[in-house]
Amino acid sequence: MSELPATSLELRSLVTADGTLELSLVEVPLPVPADDEVLVRIDAAPINPTDMIHFLAGADLSRADFSGPADRPVVTAPLADGAVRRLAGRVGTSLPAGSEGAGTVVATGTGAEALLGRTVALGGTATYAHYRVANAAFCLPLPDGATAKDGASSFVNPLTALGMVTTLRREGHTGLVNTAAASNLGQMLVKLCLRDDVPLVSIVRRPEQAELLRSLGAKFVCDTSARTFMDDLIAAVTATSATLAFDATGGGALASQILTAMEVAASTTGPFSGYGSTVHKQVYVYGGLDPSPMVLTRSYGFAWGLSGWLLTPFLAGLGGDMRTLLGRVAAELTTTFASHYTGELSLAQALNPQAISAYTKRATGEKYLITPHAA
Amino acid sequence: MSELPATSLELRSLVTADGTLELSLVEVPLPVPADDEVLVRIDAAPINPTDMIHFLAGADLSRADFSGPADRPVVTAPLADGAVRRLAGRVGTSLPAGSEGAGTVVATGTGAEALLGRTVALGGTATYAHYRVANAAFCLPLPDGATAKDGASSFVNPLTALGMVTTLRREGHTGLVNTAAASNLGQMLVKLCLRDDVPLVSIVRRPEQAELLRSLGAKFVCDTSARTFMDDLIAAVTATSATLAFDATGGGALASQILTAMEVAASTTGPFSGYGSTVHKQVYVYGGLDPSPMVLTRSYGFAWGLSGWLLTPFLAGLGGDMRTLLGRVAAELTTTFASHYTGELSLAQALNPQAISAYTKRATGEKYLITPHAA
Repeated sequence: MSELPATSLELRSLVTADGTLELSLVEVPLPVPADDEVLVRIDAAPINPTDMIHFLAGADLSRADFSGPADRPVVTAPLADGAVRRLAGRVGTSLPAGSEGAGTVVATGTGAEALLGRTVALGGTATYAHYRVANAAFCLPLPDGATAKDGASSFVNPLTALGMVTTLRREGHTGLVNTAAASNLGQMLVKLCLRDDVPLVSIVRRPEQAELLRSLGAKFVCDTSARTFMDDLIAAVTATSATLAFDATGGGALASQILTAMEVAASTTGPFSGYGSTVHKQVYVYGGLDPSPMVLTRSYGFAWGLSGWLLTPFLAGLGGDMRTLLGRVAAELTTTFASHYTGELSLAQALNPQAISAYTKRATGEKYLITPHAA
Repeated sequence: MSELPATSLELRSLVTADGTLELSLVEVPLPVPADDEVLVRIDAAPINPTDMIHFLAGADLSRADFSGPADRPVVTAPLADGAVRRLAGRVGTSLPAGSEGAGTVVATGTGAEALLGRTVALGGTATYAHYRVANAAFCLPLPDGATAKDGASSFVNPLTALGMVTTLRREGHTGLVNTAAASNLGQMLVKLCLRDDVPLVSIVRRPEQAELLRSLGAKFVCDTSARTFMDDLIAAVTATSATLAFDATGGGALASQILTAMEVAASTTGPFSGYGSTVHKQVYVYGGLDPSPMVLTRSYGFAWGLSGWLLTPFLAGLGGDMRTLLGRVAAELTTTFASHYTGELSLAQALNPQAISAYTKRATGEKYLITPHAA
């Protein structure tokens, strides 16, 4: 314990009452693990798109100001009109960031000694930091030989992919549609569905993304930029009998197009009804990559549902099954659930203009890793 | 039985392969009740908005042609481009119309003799006719003194209103929002919610509709034509803690505005989360009065759902509770569940230009009654 520093650095996001977002590094006393807790030296934490929703608070980063010394950068940017009202609950509170990561257990409280020295993955807030305290029960010890970098993305994407397939089974669907499917998550889902024999339709925006997924073994990939998109989608939904979709875009016409394709597929069988088919068609919105309004051109009767979907309440409803899912993640960490990163950043580098610009571009498939202790 | 005619007349709707809608009266042999069935002389059958969806098939009735003799009128109108493809399942099949009605049991099959001479209400298709056969189990004998006109609308609106309140209780909500609320159904719901102590927000389009509902005792009425609509809605949703809405419009921004108001109400309590409140907000779409696309400006986090809702599958899921609901309808037929009609029409009059024009205007609160045997 003697090598541990007295303080830790954390990336923080602050919304001020005058409508400014401020991103900075804040020095805090090194946290001390209580009973059943561990202190983890965070060695790797990924930047997921959802992390940036909170971190950037929707500010206009094209007008960002960069100041402070190289090792303590400060970014400020104006918020949109009305944003302060929407964000009232966080005004004036400096919020930590990050939702998962991995590292080494460097100290433990009573009851958690078995984890000392282990490399563990963890889910939850405040992983963009040098150190973080976590409940031992929420740590996933990585298999022998797996590095912190291997395990950094063990929670959000793997559990979301497993959550989709679990939801499919629970609700009695047999085929699945995913959007923004060239993402890290989308690639993972292709591998998972191949392994679990779940017919999957992946919707992407560009031909090269379609090729990438096909190279992973994806059988049904529909490209929204193709002139034949709607026909392709109907054919793929028909071939897979997909009646469940997960939509990461949350805007535009895509969810409605998916429901329409499902209805066309469902209407080819069964008697005619003016109320539409009786086959239930479900779309879960799990992201907001497209901030434009969602437009539903309702031509799919009344047997349909559209709902928000978040990982945390899904996991809360899993109970003991959560450990089963995490066990599978650990076992397939470097295969099904392997993540690839566009680049690595220190905590300070995570606030430089190039990095900030990359987050705001939301380029599908790009994913950065924060490595707080890298030389 | 000797007074019964050899044939019956039915209103029919036919979509032809060349894209024409044809409405007419068709003479059919008088149906004969089988075991456990009754033959009902239909004395009153209401024209509900949903009946017109199928009957008119979305044809352009501003270009309708009226022909045939006064007692056998024929209406033809062109269908929109692409409609034939959408309606492929019914092309060439002459469909009966109507979804409920009431009348006198004039003949019975074995096992249904107890109903002979009774005035009964019935749900199901083909009630725009002189006579109709029905399973005795699906007939609701009306209380002594109740006329066929009193009981004509015993199924669709009363069971929908009861379905809303039943859904509210089953899903654990405590307050309810309804749209197009000046309708016959909306008025019924005001009376039902007052009686059952369910806080209700009624959304209407015009000041005089708001006044009508207030005269029935409605406490929370929001008028979309008021400049203060959104503030009024937030205040009403907050006051009622409504987290469930039934939307009859199915188009435009209204469902999204309701979800936004619910989120504002939910966000005033509890800790801030960038993912929105954890209070689940649900909108069921049960109609399509507004044919424009539905636009969702998502500012209500991820704890929300939007689904189609139809009476028939809801009733199918009720099991034995269905008789309980019908018993209540019979007991409160002339109070909570009383319907009022704009006018009465014979089968032939139902096809005259004035009537056809009234259906297509979808004027909220207007409701016609077909009285096939009126002098």
